[in-house]
Amino acid sequence: MKPLLEALRGGTPWPPPIWLMRQAGRYLPEYRAIRARAPSFIEFCLTPELAIEATLQPVRRFALDAAILFADILLVPHALGQDVTFVENEGPKLAPVRDSAALAQLSDSRAGEKLAPVMKTIAGVRAALSEHVALIGFAGAPWTVATYMIEGAGGSDFEHTRSLAYNDPEFFAALLDRIADATAAYLIAQIDAGAEALQLFDSWAGAVPASLFETAVISPTARIVRAVRTRHPGVPIIGFPRGAGSHLRAFAEQTGVDAVGIDQMTSLMNAAAALPSRVALQGNLDPVLLRDGGAAMAAETRSILAAMRGRPFVFNLGHGVLPSTPPEHVAELVSFLRGK
Amino acid sequence: MKPLLEALRGGTPWPPPIWLMRQAGRYLPEYRAIRARAPSFIEFCLTPELAIEATLQPVRRFALDAAILFADILLVPHALGQDVTFVENEGPKLAPVRDSAALAQLSDSRAGEKLAPVMKTIAGVRAALSEHVALIGFAGAPWTVATYMIEGAGGSDFEHTRSLAYNDPEFFAALLDRIADATAAYLIAQIDAGAEALQLFDSWAGAVPASLFETAVISPTARIVRAVRTRHPGVPIIGFPRGAGSHLRAFAEQTGVDAVGIDQMTSLMNAAAALPSRVALQGNLDPVLLRDGGAAMAAETRSILAAMRGRPFVFNLGHGVLPSTPPEHVAELVSFLRGK
Repeated sequence: MKPLLEALRGGTPWPPPIWLMRQAGRYLPEYRAIRARAPSFIEFCLTPELAIEATLQPVRRFALDAAILFADILLVPHALGQDVTFVENEGPKLAPVRDSAALAQLSDSRAGEKLAPVMKTIAGVRAALSEHVALIGFAGAPWTVATYMIEGAGGSDFEHTRSLAYNDPEFFAALLDRIADATAAYLIAQIDAGAEALQLFDSWAGAVPASLFETAVISPTARIVRAVRTRHPGVPIIGFPRGAGSHLRAFAEQTGVDAVGIDQMTSLMNAAAALPSRVALQGNLDPVLLRDGGAAMAAETRSILAAMRGRPFVFNLGHGVLPSTPPEHVAELVSFLRGK
Repeated sequence: MKPLLEALRGGTPWPPPIWLMRQAGRYLPEYRAIRARAPSFIEFCLTPELAIEATLQPVRRFALDAAILFADILLVPHALGQDVTFVENEGPKLAPVRDSAALAQLSDSRAGEKLAPVMKTIAGVRAALSEHVALIGFAGAPWTVATYMIEGAGGSDFEHTRSLAYNDPEFFAALLDRIADATAAYLIAQIDAGAEALQLFDSWAGAVPASLFETAVISPTARIVRAVRTRHPGVPIIGFPRGAGSHLRAFAEQTGVDAVGIDQMTSLMNAAAALPSRVALQGNLDPVLLRDGGAAMAAETRSILAAMRGRPFVFNLGHGVLPSTPPEHVAELVSFLRGK
């Protein structure tokens, strides 16, 4: 069995399998070279020839255990008809959805068609991968996607989102349900096309007020997990509620995910103690350590391995690869890990 | 005894005492009126006449249990000789300190003199307060202050700071010690001048990697607490490691603080279960709920009170008052609380 899938299903291959969030992207010169070939970031993601190449670049360079689909979490709002653009050096801009009227304008009737290129990318990547390398599909989790849809941009405070969650809970629940259902359909299609595991990125879970965590994170994640399981019971799902340290146990116990991604702010040792032993852990090297490389990276890697030995575990970063990361440091990390 | 001090010393006055982080500030028209009278924000903080007025404004308007010194956490780097300016709509800018040579340029020899106006502010406020209202002094905690000193600006990722902490631990430890010692002297002087309780704001504790939490947060906080206690054993100290949910127990057990401020991302109920019962809790209404007011604010306030009844507790927000908050909502909150 591919080592990644073995670990996600409760096995303990050692050294552990490794992949890196944002392993495809700007830190690679070959990525920057092809990025220039599409007029917009959305079109880049939706051009299979380019997205296949971007997905494969890191697994060609490094002995990683998985490729992860090159795409963006905002493809779902785009597929629902929301206006999404990526502005150079500013990030995404969306026409905000803040009431039922705006929500009613969105429709999933053309979502399958709009996202069809992603399925071509998955099929193309899967055909090109060697027999030891798994293909991970992914989507944004509903809370994180909702923050972009409501705020209309990236950010870190999400005041509009929190305000609507408190003061218009019906609208907020309807929006989360809409995102969850579109996301479940999208992920099921990814598996149909060849994805062998899934990750749900809840990058802004750390900003969710405690009184909303069940509504905003746990319940929509569980809804997606249930829907995907119904169609594809054997495909492991990794949840990554970044920054949600004090809620990890509830997240692991109540969402049904097979594995939990741990950020670098949370101790893997504490997470291992708090989470059910059936749940695999994934993480959590600080991306700054990968960027800097050298002795500090090696020391932290050793300490992660010592804490995780004997536990179902996937080595990863605590967040995405930084654009300033020298590719040689990734090679250095993988080689260090393989030597363990 | 003043209700705030009673709760911080382990008593359970009910309804609980209340104050609000950033209760003095831009949301008050009378604050905006006096802010214009100083040429820079630093000068505003260091002009006792203006800082006394800013500190007293909220306790004149609302039946709060405490005034908190109006000042800024960057007065400590300013007092150490670092160049600190506040740029309108951009936030603070500092000449970054990233190596031992830059650190050696800083000196505490004039710190007492530079911070003397703060002591005048404290004495002036204390003389004006009614007998039920306590005066809280404060400072930034070393990690949070270090992020500004190293990055040279506000931010949320602190990549330079993390990188230095990993790769130049001697420099990083020396910087934290320097900040901690200057902060302890500053807080001791605040008590000498009339402060009756202290809060250490570690606003960016949530960004600290787990492997650095002891070094960056717990140890420097404990160093300050020990130094202040030696001189003023009876003055309660509140630690506020914002965003550090999964580390709260270690923070409460190992720093020696009397009370822990809880942000809105952490459940007060879970915090109460995790923390030693001698430690008072403070928090954690979402500032967005205060800004919006009404039924959602009342419901969450009721739920906070239900969770905290019988526990040493100080009502507060989970972070500072938002500038867009209508002052009437503060009056509404205080009156709702007093009716309980």
